Amino acid sequence: MEHIPVIRLGEFLLVTIQVDIHDRLALKLREDLSTAIVQDQVRGVVIEVSSLETLDTFIARVLSEIAATSKLLGAETVIVGMRPAVALTLVELGMTLDAVKTAADVDRGVDWLRSRRTGREP
Amino acid sequence: MEHIPVIRLGEFLLVTIQVDIHDRLALKLREDLSTAIVQDQVRGVVIEVSSLETLDTFIARVLSEIAATSKLLGAETVIVGMRPAVALTLVELGMTLDAVKTAADVDRGVDWLRSRRTGREP
Repeated sequence: MEHIPVIRLGEFLLVTIQVDIHDRLALKLREDLSTAIVQDQVRGVVIEVSSLETLDTFIARVLSEIAATSKLLGAETVIVGMRPAVALTLVELGMTLDAVKTAADVDRGVDWLRSRRTGREP
Repeated sequence: MEHIPVIRLGEFLLVTIQVDIHDRLALKLREDLSTAIVQDQVRGVVIEVSSLETLDTFIARVLSEIAATSKLLGAETVIVGMRPAVALTLVELGMTLDAVKTAADVDRGVDWLRSRRTGREP
């Protein structure tokens, strides 16, 4: 069951990460996501990470790369649901994910993506 | 990382099942979902199962029980993204999930839930 689904959610895509991401799965996710962005012509991607109890430099890099790839394809990425402990770890590791937008939950992430389209902050 | 997140999606809840569900995890999910339904006063639950390559009688029973519990709490359940092979297996097992609504994807599941609220089929 090594597969992270990319879910179409109206005009956005949603990915919830629940499993340990290893190298091959990360590549597959980035590929699936890129294909879906182009195919469905979406403008935004929400990545939900509330299941992740730890987030190491590898996953942080994967998320950054997904955001950068999506941006090149015309979609903004927002990471939502990060646990406080995970945020603390990331800061300690010096990875503040500056290039990636974060939000508290999916609803707020979608609000932010909508505001980007209309050019108005929520 | 034994935890299936319950994601608030506007007026509905979304659960994507990506991991093998064992007994304890199923109980935890049913409990989390029930709590969220009551707390957020939602009217509908979407369960996304496109990652499941197999679906045995145990998981089918878990899904039926979740739907029944949600109904008692005032929320409809719709299962989306089932693979054709999984549907075939379920029919062969004689489990046609008659009591549970199914839809092709999350968007259509949400459409159906909305139509239930307005009393109009999509």
